[in-house]
Amino acid sequence: MDTLLNRRTIRSYTSQTVAPELLNELLAATIRSSTTGNMQLYSIVVTREEATRKALAPAHFNQPVSLNAPLLVTFCADFNRFNLWCEQRQAVPGYANFQSFMTAALDATIAAQTFCIAAEAKGLGICYLGTTTYNPDKIIEVLNLPRFVVPITTIALGYPAQIPEACERLPLEAVVHYEAYQPYTPESIDRLYAEKEAYAPNVQFTRENNKETLAQVFTDIRYPQANNEHFSHVLLEVLKGQGFLNSETL
Amino acid sequence: MDTLLNRRTIRSYTSQTVAPELLNELLAATIRSSTTGNMQLYSIVVTREEATRKALAPAHFNQPVSLNAPLLVTFCADFNRFNLWCEQRQAVPGYANFQSFMTAALDATIAAQTFCIAAEAKGLGICYLGTTTYNPDKIIEVLNLPRFVVPITTIALGYPAQIPEACERLPLEAVVHYEAYQPYTPESIDRLYAEKEAYAPNVQFTRENNKETLAQVFTDIRYPQANNEHFSHVLLEVLKGQGFLNSETL
Repeated sequence: MDTLLNRRTIRSYTSQTVAPELLNELLAATIRSSTTGNMQLYSIVVTREEATRKALAPAHFNQPVSLNAPLLVTFCADFNRFNLWCEQRQAVPGYANFQSFMTAALDATIAAQTFCIAAEAKGLGICYLGTTTYNPDKIIEVLNLPRFVVPITTIALGYPAQIPEACERLPLEAVVHYEAYQPYTPESIDRLYAEKEAYAPNVQFTRENNKETLAQVFTDIRYPQANNEHFSHVLLEVLKGQGFLNSETL
Repeated sequence: MDTLLNRRTIRSYTSQTVAPELLNELLAATIRSSTTGNMQLYSIVVTREEATRKALAPAHFNQPVSLNAPLLVTFCADFNRFNLWCEQRQAVPGYANFQSFMTAALDATIAAQTFCIAAEAKGLGICYLGTTTYNPDKIIEVLNLPRFVVPITTIALGYPAQIPEACERLPLEAVVHYEAYQPYTPESIDRLYAEKEAYAPNVQFTRENNKETLAQVFTDIRYPQANNEHFSHVLLEVLKGQGFLNSETL
């Protein structure tokens, strides 16, 4: 519980490598996590070599963390292995559809989070690279991912060079509902976001970005509509190309 | 690490309730987990009342675990709260698209897995209900989920009545690739699945289902193509209805 409560996202790492034995220990814990029907519909691609990490970095917009971490670990939705097994066993796989993609994407994400918690329990630091679903086409190319494999998320992993302050979070009541979803009101939104908006680093962040409100930093700069729509198109095209979206399912 | 390595999925629970203080502790650990841009794009709906659990059970095909567990916890992708905040802060949200759905679905799944690990660390048992993405329309109705909220996964939670044997898993080398994806060969598939196929409960399971191979139990009975295609259609319709798929993104 202390590991979970005291964690911080790490964006700056020392040059210390992660020992193969330790990495194996993390991976052995990872594959114990829940997976749909015990099908293990994911693959984990561990990138250690600098050349490959440099080839991946543009897919992560060359974020410093993507170049600075000694390891990048890409978690992929994977029906390729399962399909091959089925075909070798006189079984006809029926997984060329969106529901199967979502199942495998969940399996991959559950594995990724278990891996992160195992790493943090061992004193390592992690950072999720959300850019993986923005540029899956580039990652597919660098990592040589076949049909029915789609990268879902990437974990930067290493020993922390600095331990930053913990991020602020919304109060628990902002995200937890009992029995059914309790609609938000203008008053409840004001109350639930008050602490976040008053948090000094957020005030400074809003000012540095020349915005009137913190929300505008998100909508206008960090996650603007045009980008979201562009990367939606890229991701959907990748799902089609990798075999998970077709006219029957759309 | 012991919690991660020794876990089992629990499908049978005692009648002991989960104390609200303990549940709060699990939820407090959950909201520390990684979330895209610290936007916390998820909501957690905790169902304690028997009437609501009974109303949810058909969405989970009345699996015994969905009726037997004292708590059902539904993790939802949620852009509703964030959108409302933006609109109250002179910011124009641009999240009515597929990429934003995937971002929120990842946030929800990361939170779900943190919740599960916290629960297991406290001696509770969990079971993922993968049926959530099959019948999201029914869950939306029972839990009163507004536009821009989609249920992603449901955790059954309680005190284990029985601790089953740990499931078998594929060997680590089956799911881990170094540097790039290493293509499988007919020989490697045979080798990687050999232990799973020889595992006595799987041999029995294949026989009970009158199938020649274990793979056929998956393709013909557990996850057949017609079901996957039907539930793909349902899920895509729900994404449209909840605002995440539109002509621009398709």
